[in-house]
Amino acid sequence: MAYKAPVRDLTFVLNEVLDIDRYANQPGFQDVSSDLVAQILEEGAKFAEEVIAPLNKVGDTEGCKWADGKVTGPTGWKEAYQAMVAAGWPALSALTEHGGQGMPSVVAMAFGQFTAAASPAFSMYPGLTAGAYWGLNANGSDEQKAMYLPKMASGEWGGTMNLTEPQCGTDLGLIRTKAVPNGDGSYNITGQKIWISSGEHDFTDNIIHLVLARIEGAPAGIKGISLFVVPKVFVNEDGSLGERNEGVQCAGLEHKMGIHGNATCVMAYENAKGWLVGTENKGMAAMFVMMNEARLGTGLQGLAIGTAAYQAAVEFAHDRLQGRSLTGPKNPDGPADSIMVHPDVRRMLLEAKAFVEGGQAFTLWTALQADLQHSDDEATAQKAKDYMGLITPVLKAYLTDKGFHVASLAMQVHGGSGYTEHYPASQYLRDARITMIYEGANGIQALDLVGRKLPANGGRAIMSWFADIDAFVSENGGDTPIKPFVDGLADTKKKLQEATMWLMQNGMQNPDNAGAASTDYLNVFGLTALAYLWAQMAKAAQKQIDAGSTDPYYANKLITGRYFVERILPDASGHMAKLKTGADVLMALPAEAF
Amino acid sequence: MAYKAPVRDLTFVLNEVLDIDRYANQPGFQDVSSDLVAQILEEGAKFAEEVIAPLNKVGDTEGCKWADGKVTGPTGWKEAYQAMVAAGWPALSALTEHGGQGMPSVVAMAFGQFTAAASPAFSMYPGLTAGAYWGLNANGSDEQKAMYLPKMASGEWGGTMNLTEPQCGTDLGLIRTKAVPNGDGSYNITGQKIWISSGEHDFTDNIIHLVLARIEGAPAGIKGISLFVVPKVFVNEDGSLGERNEGVQCAGLEHKMGIHGNATCVMAYENAKGWLVGTENKGMAAMFVMMNEARLGTGLQGLAIGTAAYQAAVEFAHDRLQGRSLTGPKNPDGPADSIMVHPDVRRMLLEAKAFVEGGQAFTLWTALQADLQHSDDEATAQKAKDYMGLITPVLKAYLTDKGFHVASLAMQVHGGSGYTEHYPASQYLRDARITMIYEGANGIQALDLVGRKLPANGGRAIMSWFADIDAFVSENGGDTPIKPFVDGLADTKKKLQEATMWLMQNGMQNPDNAGAASTDYLNVFGLTALAYLWAQMAKAAQKQIDAGSTDPYYANKLITGRYFVERILPDASGHMAKLKTGADVLMALPAEAF
Repeated sequence: MAYKAPVRDLTFVLNEVLDIDRYANQPGFQDVSSDLVAQILEEGAKFAEEVIAPLNKVGDTEGCKWADGKVTGPTGWKEAYQAMVAAGWPALSALTEHGGQGMPSVVAMAFGQFTAAASPAFSMYPGLTAGAYWGLNANGSDEQKAMYLPKMASGEWGGTMNLTEPQCGTDLGLIRTKAVPNGDGSYNITGQKIWISSGEHDFTDNIIHLVLARIEGAPAGIKGISLFVVPKVFVNEDGSLGERNEGVQCAGLEHKMGIHGNATCVMAYENAKGWLVGTENKGMAAMFVMMNEARLGTGLQGLAIGTAAYQAAVEFAHDRLQGRSLTGPKNPDGPADSIMVHPDVRRMLLEAKAFVEGGQAFTLWTALQADLQHSDDEATAQKAKDYMGLITPVLKAYLTDKGFHVASLAMQVHGGSGYTEHYPASQYLRDARITMIYEGANGIQALDLVGRKLPANGGRAIMSWFADIDAFVSENGGDTPIKPFVDGLADTKKKLQEATMWLMQNGMQNPDNAGAASTDYLNVFGLTALAYLWAQMAKAAQKQIDAGSTDPYYANKLITGRYFVERILPDASGHMAKLKTGADVLMALPAEAF
Repeated sequence: MAYKAPVRDLTFVLNEVLDIDRYANQPGFQDVSSDLVAQILEEGAKFAEEVIAPLNKVGDTEGCKWADGKVTGPTGWKEAYQAMVAAGWPALSALTEHGGQGMPSVVAMAFGQFTAAASPAFSMYPGLTAGAYWGLNANGSDEQKAMYLPKMASGEWGGTMNLTEPQCGTDLGLIRTKAVPNGDGSYNITGQKIWISSGEHDFTDNIIHLVLARIEGAPAGIKGISLFVVPKVFVNEDGSLGERNEGVQCAGLEHKMGIHGNATCVMAYENAKGWLVGTENKGMAAMFVMMNEARLGTGLQGLAIGTAAYQAAVEFAHDRLQGRSLTGPKNPDGPADSIMVHPDVRRMLLEAKAFVEGGQAFTLWTALQADLQHSDDEATAQKAKDYMGLITPVLKAYLTDKGFHVASLAMQVHGGSGYTEHYPASQYLRDARITMIYEGANGIQALDLVGRKLPANGGRAIMSWFADIDAFVSENGGDTPIKPFVDGLADTKKKLQEATMWLMQNGMQNPDNAGAASTDYLNVFGLTALAYLWAQMAKAAQKQIDAGSTDPYYANKLITGRYFVERILPDASGHMAKLKTGADVLMALPAEAF
């Protein structure tokens, strides 16, 4: 059941669909060629397959152990983490000024997919550090950056995000953790934070906590929240480690349904010494840098788990002999045919494959936008920023919903075997479920999309995206072999446009209509995004076929994409019908009647 | 988080929708009045809530323990099981000739819903016994029935079904367990059976195993399978217990994702003494009695878990204060509003509630068909038997798919809390997942529906069911307040009829088309069935309102039903589009390209 990193699928997207060599003149891409990327991915695949993947099950079985505030990871995890640091993987996309390799996001997101699939729980140790790294980089002082970022870039030190408290997750305005100024520029921070992923462990010498807290006397609600950096171990001016910051301690671990290998910590702050990051009372804005990074990472994680689960299901289906093909035996000398002959088993596998490959393209397309945000060309940068804002909630929610769906399909293909812990299907299903919840539950993503991202700048982002799709459709709308892809895209985009109009008309009138429509709207958006990427993949594959390629990869890509068009896109109609019913029926039932 | 048995919902269905008092002249109903049923359900609810529900979590946490072939249940389970036997609950629907109470299926299925919701794993101990009881009753000799059935009826002895072996689950033609005649009417049975629910435990003095095996020299495949009864402890002629049947042993327990409290056993048969049940080589037909019973029980279990999960989500949503209503604060004096104000939270809860209440009605309607099979009126009995055949795979697959979906929605409402094992959401989700797999994976149910049940007797069953729906629609099709329900039913039924025609035309031509369409077809069928029941519930509720009732129960029932019509029925369109694409795209991909 070994995970195999889908290098070919990703290089196909990077080189033949997105054609990253086009961007050689963009910041971050100067030294990046498609050949170099292919090499990096080959190496990264090896690392994920050989070092990380074998640890996934032991993480699930053993989990993390807490004793007297100290947390020990599962057997072999510390060593693997340190091997990863030694090999330089966490530094892949970190800035060169911090010793990183400065690779663009497209490369980091491709590699990130491998680690997240190989072990979702393991990948959260570098994943949270990356979130904290970028958050501190965007908001910290030069001194703070110099003190923390090089070691975080390399992964020698960990990083965390401390937002949630028992009384607040989504609604961070309710944060109670308080910060009292010491008069020397530092603050004493006191409060309890929960569900802190990678909050404490024995993999690194230091962990840099970024913590939301309320400075004494700050305004109530969201406008009185500030961001602090609280190192587990103080850092001396020369960069060496000082004393333990005794005020921050891990008070215990959560018992969770999955991702057992990741330490989900209750963190107790009791006069922990910390320093303000950025401006007083502007902590939420500062935190959003990390949260957006984390949201993309979470969408990627959902997709990646789906990829691994799909692979396990394929392997099982090949091996499992049971029953006969409806059209006569296909393995007449064996006791039965492989279950791969059954249309309904193929339906489940193709549903998974079509989503997974579409999702892979969607993440890399989004990563490209992340890179183009830094373009020197203002229009290019603006458009990319617009897209990042618009797409982030869609990518997070759609890919995690569907990643879980794929993990469930993968279990179903296994039959009873999948429900036992002997096969990996259960772990994938349990691990995948959290991705729909953390970093903003998917319903919150949908609200963010319709309430904030759509209307921003007068709808500039979505209008631009629609125009891009229209241009693609008119360029490729002829009577060619990819016509079904282009038609499917045009039809779904038309629905999304109609839904957007509906939202504008009805959401203004009554905000509950926007809330009521949000999840169905996000689903139509996700379908449109994948239809767009599938159409681009179909075009690239057809181009090779037209040029005479006999590599079956391209023909098979078109078949998988046809499944998407024929059997996934039709979901859009149901979502449209639902969202147009508005809030009435939802709000009519008295609360006590539930 | 206490489970509350939905007595009102079920008595509403039994008395006001199905009007069971109408059936006083039918076998089994003679002494049954709606008042008596209400009393039984009140008592049953108390037992489920007070005795069973508190054990559910400990079952999950502790699981079962195996040592030297002996299995010990979780703390308190044995005592609760024995209290249940003492109170007479397992005997509720058992035949009076075996000391049972002879209650009709509608009562047993209503009570069964309570136990399955209170603890899915616990309910499988009496559940499997019931399956074995009915299987032996249908196929055993008078002597066998007299020897085993009274104690199985009461629950003093357990019962099991031994089908699966490592190399075969779905494809029982591959069974290898062999039976060698001893010359005295008994057989020596040798082989390994896996995934035997309740296969071994310490709750009862004896366990009666029904085992599929192949008599030496029997034809290959499905036509050489016979059914045997293999008691764990031999029964003397006077009914007392004799020696241990040493040849049957529990060799270990499966480690599963959920239902930890149920002992899922590997059973080793090594010259275990057993006796043929029914006719040689006709074991499959005999087993189907049990399997059909078990399939209904599994559908019920999926639904019941959904009910309990929904209740936990409602309780959490009431208590959780987070954010503010989009239309202004609803709890201005509190730190935040309850999340019940958010349309998207209500969407998840109503999705659950509309499915759960529709599913409850569907199970009771089906149970009524089970009862009417025994009617003295031949036409009534025939029609009921037709419906049981047709509906069983739909009920099993649709209710378990949606039960899992509801459990996942319930977790989502909990946010991060739901992912921790502190709240019950995780257990419900993990427990619910198996129902989609065992007793015939849902894809197998879909194949059974399209391949066997639809065409049986020239399509008599479905044509009769369509005629019933048409009659309901024309009787209730006026411009009344329930028009949306009737229209929704008529529209979905029309789609199902269209899909049935498509299957007839395309499935004959190429059986893979039937396989390819089967799951989407089953979904349209499930939607039609729930639409039919919802229309009947709406009619009953509206009747009370028209008669001047001010009980809010009826108005709220109509709101919940409206959600079903507006926001669940639209799924039918997508399924229709998908099923009509046929098998081409599914079969086109070479097996090695997955």
